Amino acid sequence: MPVNLQATPADQLFAVAGVRWGITEAGVRKAGRKDLSIMLLDEGAVVGAVFTQNRFCAAPVQLCRQHLAGGGHAIRALMINTGNANAGTGQEGLERARACCQALAEQLSVRPEQILPFSTGVIMEMLPSERIVAGLPKAVAAAHADRWPLAAEAIMTTDTVPKACSRQVVVGGRQVTITGISKGAGMIRPNMATMLGFMATDACIDASLMNALAHDIAEGSFNRITVDGDTSTNDSFVVVATHKAGHAPITGWDSADAQALRAALFDVARWLAQAIVRDGEGATKFITVRVEGGRDTQECLRVAYAIGHSPLVKTAFFASDPNLGRILAAVGYAGLSDLDQTRIDLYLDDVLVAQGGGRHPQYQEADGARVMKQSEIAVRVLLGRGSASETIWTCDFSYDYVKINADYRS
Amino acid sequence: MPVNLQATPADQLFAVAGVRWGITEAGVRKAGRKDLSIMLLDEGAVVGAVFTQNRFCAAPVQLCRQHLAGGGHAIRALMINTGNANAGTGQEGLERARACCQALAEQLSVRPEQILPFSTGVIMEMLPSERIVAGLPKAVAAAHADRWPLAAEAIMTTDTVPKACSRQVVVGGRQVTITGISKGAGMIRPNMATMLGFMATDACIDASLMNALAHDIAEGSFNRITVDGDTSTNDSFVVVATHKAGHAPITGWDSADAQALRAALFDVARWLAQAIVRDGEGATKFITVRVEGGRDTQECLRVAYAIGHSPLVKTAFFASDPNLGRILAAVGYAGLSDLDQTRIDLYLDDVLVAQGGGRHPQYQEADGARVMKQSEIAVRVLLGRGSASETIWTCDFSYDYVKINADYRS
Repeated sequence: MPVNLQATPADQLFAVAGVRWGITEAGVRKAGRKDLSIMLLDEGAVVGAVFTQNRFCAAPVQLCRQHLAGGGHAIRALMINTGNANAGTGQEGLERARACCQALAEQLSVRPEQILPFSTGVIMEMLPSERIVAGLPKAVAAAHADRWPLAAEAIMTTDTVPKACSRQVVVGGRQVTITGISKGAGMIRPNMATMLGFMATDACIDASLMNALAHDIAEGSFNRITVDGDTSTNDSFVVVATHKAGHAPITGWDSADAQALRAALFDVARWLAQAIVRDGEGATKFITVRVEGGRDTQECLRVAYAIGHSPLVKTAFFASDPNLGRILAAVGYAGLSDLDQTRIDLYLDDVLVAQGGGRHPQYQEADGARVMKQSEIAVRVLLGRGSASETIWTCDFSYDYVKINADYRS
Repeated sequence: MPVNLQATPADQLFAVAGVRWGITEAGVRKAGRKDLSIMLLDEGAVVGAVFTQNRFCAAPVQLCRQHLAGGGHAIRALMINTGNANAGTGQEGLERARACCQALAEQLSVRPEQILPFSTGVIMEMLPSERIVAGLPKAVAAAHADRWPLAAEAIMTTDTVPKACSRQVVVGGRQVTITGISKGAGMIRPNMATMLGFMATDACIDASLMNALAHDIAEGSFNRITVDGDTSTNDSFVVVATHKAGHAPITGWDSADAQALRAALFDVARWLAQAIVRDGEGATKFITVRVEGGRDTQECLRVAYAIGHSPLVKTAFFASDPNLGRILAAVGYAGLSDLDQTRIDLYLDDVLVAQGGGRHPQYQEADGARVMKQSEIAVRVLLGRGSASETIWTCDFSYDYVKINADYRS
C-alpha cells in the first residue's frame, strides 16, 4: 500500500499541446501488458534531459546521450519500454536499441537521432527488439493528446500506483500547462534523475535553457529521494517544452512570469519524485529528512542519506519503534570526520529527542512513540556547524521490500 | 540460523596464561542474563586496540581512548556490559562509565585508568551504572582462566551463537596460545573494528608493536565484513599479549617465528570476523566478494562494499535468484567516475556471468541458479584497470533481518 498516494484522476491531468502519447502491448516480457509507450512531439519542441551517473548505464541511456549531443531542439519522439532494462547487454544491446530507434524513425519520417529510447525492467537480459519493432505501428496509430493517464500506467514496473501530475500557470497572459509522469519503486537512489520521469509543458522556453532546467529540477526533486540506495542503470528525466502556448519565449528566469513557471515545473517534479517514495517497494511510511546547520550542501546530503539508507533506521520506522539512537549512529558514520557530537540536536517532528549529542532530559519515549506511529514523519538534525541545509525524502523498510525483491523475476 | 557456524566446543578453547574472565548477571536491561564480563590481566600484559570511526562514538569508547593514550602497558582489566550501549548519552553517560571504572579499580587496587570499559546494546538510553557497580564484586570473585566459553556467551546481544576461536603455534621453542571472542550480528560495518572483539595471547610481544598489530589485524578481518552497512557507535577490538609464554620478546615481525605468530593471530581474527557475518541478523548465506584488477585498495573496497550493501543484491541472494544484473548496477554506482563498463567481467564462483560488461554468450541461467542455491557463494568482479585486489565478507538480506530489527527492543 503506497503512503497517502492515489492515482490522479484523469480529468485532473491536462493534455499538453504538441504532445501525443501512443501506448500498446508489445509483449516485451509478458503478454497482455501495456509495455510500449511512444511520446510524439510536434516540430518545434525543445528538450532537456539528465541521466543516471551509474557507470553501468544502460544502452538506451548511452543512445540518448548521443542523440542529445547536438542539443535537444530536433527530438521528435520518446520511446519507452518496460520489462527489460537493456542494461549489462554490451554491444548487442546498443545495436538492438538502435534498431528500435531506426524503425520508429522510418515510421515518423525523421532521423533515428531524433528519437530518444528508454528502457526499464530486468538487467542483463537481451532486449527483444523484434517485438518492440513489431509493436511500434500500433503505438503510433494509437497516439492521442489525452493519453497521459495511460502512459503513466504503461511505464510502471513494481509501482503499485500510476504517478502523474498537472499544473497550470499564466505566462505572458497565456495559460500554460505542465504535465508529468514518473515511475519507480525500487533501485531508487537517483543520481541525476529517477528511473524514468517525463514532463512536458506547452510553454515557450529557449532551447539553450533546457538542459540546465532539467538539471536544476532534478536537483530539487528526483535527486533528493531514496528508497534503497541502489542507483539504477537507467535513470532518465526529460522535460519538454513544446512552444505552443503562444507567449513570448522565455530566455532567462528573472521575470515574475518565468519564476512562476519555474516554480510550477519544480512543483510537478517534486510531486512526482515524492510519489515514487510514497510508492517505494514495501513502504508504509513517508519520511522527510532535513539536515540543518551544515557547512555546505554536500555534507548535509551525506548526513541525510546516511539516515535515509540505514537499514536499522528504516526498520525502526517500519516497526514504529522510537529506537532513535540509530539515527544518531547514522549521523556519526556519515563521513564528517571532524563532526562534534556534542553540538548535535535531533528532532522527530516537533519533539526534541536529543540535544548536544545526548538524550534530552525532557524527552519522553511516549512522545517519540506518538510520532513514530504517523504515516508521515519528519526527522530534523541540527549539526551546529554552519548555515547550509538540505532535505531528502525516503520511506521505511518492511518485510514487503524483501518479499518484492526476492520475488521480482518470478 | 547462522550459516555453517556452530559454537566452538569448550575443550577446543584454550586458556591464555595471564588472563581470567569473571562473568555475572547484573540485570543491566533484563534479569537472568549474563550481561557483565570482566577480563582480568596479570601485571605485565600489553594491549593494542582500535575503535569505531563513528563520530557518535559511545562513552566507553571515549574513555578507552583516554585510558590508552599513554600506551597499553598498564591495563589490568576489561569490563564489558551488554543491554546498553552507553552511546548518545552525553556527559552523564561519560560520568557513569567513569563510575564503573572507578568501582572496579578500587576492588582490584589499581587506578581507574587501568580499566577499559566496553558497552553494547541499545543506544541513547542511560547506562544503569549502579547495577553494574553492584555486580562487579560477584564478577571479580568468579574470575577464572577457563571462562572463555562463558565470556563468548555473555557478550552476545542479537547473536545466536557464541563466537570463540583458539590456535596454538610454537614461538622460540615455546607453545604459544591465542584465544579470541567476538560478538555482533547487526549494525555491522566495522570501520576500525567490530562491535566487540577481544583476543589474547600469552606470547611476548613488545608493547610498542601492539597498536599497529591491532590495526593490521582489524584491517585483515573485522574491517572487511559488513552485514547492513551500519557502522556502530561502539566498535572495539582489543588484542592482549600477556608475556607468559617465556620466549624471547618479539620486537619486529621479520623472523619466521614472528611471522607464524602473526599469521595465527590473523587467522583467529578472520575466523571471528567471518563468524559475525555467518551469524548476521537473518543471514541464510555467506558471501565472499572479491574485486580484482582495481587501481588501488580503496577503489576495490568501494566496489566490494557497493555490492555488499546493496539491498537488491542481498535480497536476490536470499531468494537464490540469479538476478545478477543487480551486481553490475552496484559496480556501476560504486563511485568510480571513470569506470569503463566494457572492461568488466563478473564471476559467480567458477561461472563466468558477464564479460566485457555484457552477459557472456555461454552463460546459462541454470549455472547461475545452481551457485545461488549454495550456502556459501563467491562473487568475483574483474575491473580490468589495475593490479589491486580486495576481499570482503557479507551475508544476504532476509525477512528475518527486518523482523529482528523491527522487534529488537521489545
